[in-house]
Amino acid sequence: MMYCYLNGQIMPTDNASIKLNDLGLLRGYGMFDYFRTYNSQPFKWDWYWQRFEQSAHTLSLKLLLTQTEAAAIVSELLQLSGQVDAAFRFVLTGGYSPDSVRVIEPNLAIICENLRTENAVLYEKGIKILPFEFVRDLPEIKTTNYLNMIRLAAEMQSQNASDLLYFKDGEVSELTRSNFFIFKGDTLITPNRHILQGITRRVVLGLATAHFKVEVRPLLYSELAEADEAFTTSSIKWVLPIVQIGRQLIGDGAVGHRSKLLLELFKKETELL
Amino acid sequence: MMYCYLNGQIMPTDNASIKLNDLGLLRGYGMFDYFRTYNSQPFKWDWYWQRFEQSAHTLSLKLLLTQTEAAAIVSELLQLSGQVDAAFRFVLTGGYSPDSVRVIEPNLAIICENLRTENAVLYEKGIKILPFEFVRDLPEIKTTNYLNMIRLAAEMQSQNASDLLYFKDGEVSELTRSNFFIFKGDTLITPNRHILQGITRRVVLGLATAHFKVEVRPLLYSELAEADEAFTTSSIKWVLPIVQIGRQLIGDGAVGHRSKLLLELFKKETELL
Repeated sequence: MMYCYLNGQIMPTDNASIKLNDLGLLRGYGMFDYFRTYNSQPFKWDWYWQRFEQSAHTLSLKLLLTQTEAAAIVSELLQLSGQVDAAFRFVLTGGYSPDSVRVIEPNLAIICENLRTENAVLYEKGIKILPFEFVRDLPEIKTTNYLNMIRLAAEMQSQNASDLLYFKDGEVSELTRSNFFIFKGDTLITPNRHILQGITRRVVLGLATAHFKVEVRPLLYSELAEADEAFTTSSIKWVLPIVQIGRQLIGDGAVGHRSKLLLELFKKETELL
Repeated sequence: MMYCYLNGQIMPTDNASIKLNDLGLLRGYGMFDYFRTYNSQPFKWDWYWQRFEQSAHTLSLKLLLTQTEAAAIVSELLQLSGQVDAAFRFVLTGGYSPDSVRVIEPNLAIICENLRTENAVLYEKGIKILPFEFVRDLPEIKTTNYLNMIRLAAEMQSQNASDLLYFKDGEVSELTRSNFFIFKGDTLITPNRHILQGITRRVVLGLATAHFKVEVRPLLYSELAEADEAFTTSSIKWVLPIVQIGRQLIGDGAVGHRSKLLLELFKKETELL
């Protein structure tokens, strides 16, 4: 059985519930973060916590836990799960509101979830994604607004695609839940704006500098035609190769050796904890 | 005590709750509608229900109730409230998801709430609103994404403003939860796009045609300087005069006679039920 923390109490997740007047539910006023452990330790925990704190600050939501208190809860939930590793979802909402507008006291949940990993075949074959004209509002915050991702799930499935690539005014930003990179030769390029500052993105950029030229800058949609490789990064996807965007093949449509190298480097990084 | 309907059951709203893996909560995948009764009858119920059905269809969410069934529930909840009139909030979310992405079965709540009305003084003095550069994603759907409204509440309060006026690329759309109109002389103008098709807006447009020239078309931000009157409409606000937008006074900064006429006509319409 999996457990969660909700507003001061630890309980089986199946028993946890929130009332209907929560502003996350009624108004989409909520944010979250998501990370996993390796060898029972939260990976890059400091960075995740900082991002969570910053997002809470931007939404003017009080965080009623310190990092140390949160770490103790994460540790307890992992033990209760009986598993070596797990994923954790932090959810902070505007809380219960008397008039469905005013924030009184946030609701905070820390949910311990079974680890999900991508199908190993995808790392060999790469994925197809679909371009979608959109830019997230407040992209620097991991808000709970994922309308497009869910609304277009059937369309993606019908086109055998795994995700959407957001672009707007000719500029590429990110996938629905992960960051985006391309290689032009030995130059690695990733957008610098209209994105969530992903933790895996940050790790990969750090690893890449020893092997490639790195450019963090606005990336034009038109540049995709010149890309030799492309991939996406997230805490669950690691470095997942992208071989097709809409009808356009990336490079020769096969997974490239540079993306493979970054995937190997990232895996090593997680094992080194 | 107020009661609600949740997934087939009627219960006190304080006892109603949803689990943490609801997609409305985790992903903002939800929509709602809100209307009130006059003389114990839902006002323009057919129009609200049609809009709710259309929104559900756009989000590919199954509506498990017919209009007749929903009407019976609304009637029962109103009786249980012991009040003559009440407001009703319909909330439909993506429901409980095994992986926080896939929709299996929506959650539907019908919440009976105490009537809220605007302070009578505001109809005499008018309100101030702040311009905010933004356009809603999927504006035609009453989704639960109201991030800006809540995030900027403190800023509005500090500037003694009641709401935000969204504009983008020089074009005005709507307030955070209500529609927007201006008068230039005896011509009534309201935006035709990037808006929620409000029911009160529709009623007011119908009432206005007998008295004014009506233009439903893109409205430029620059036209606000030429407006003699402005107001906003919603099921709770009725026809609420706007006398200031940011630093700019509308007309002479006082509530105009044309807006007052529309307010009176709207009130009569609701009493005639």
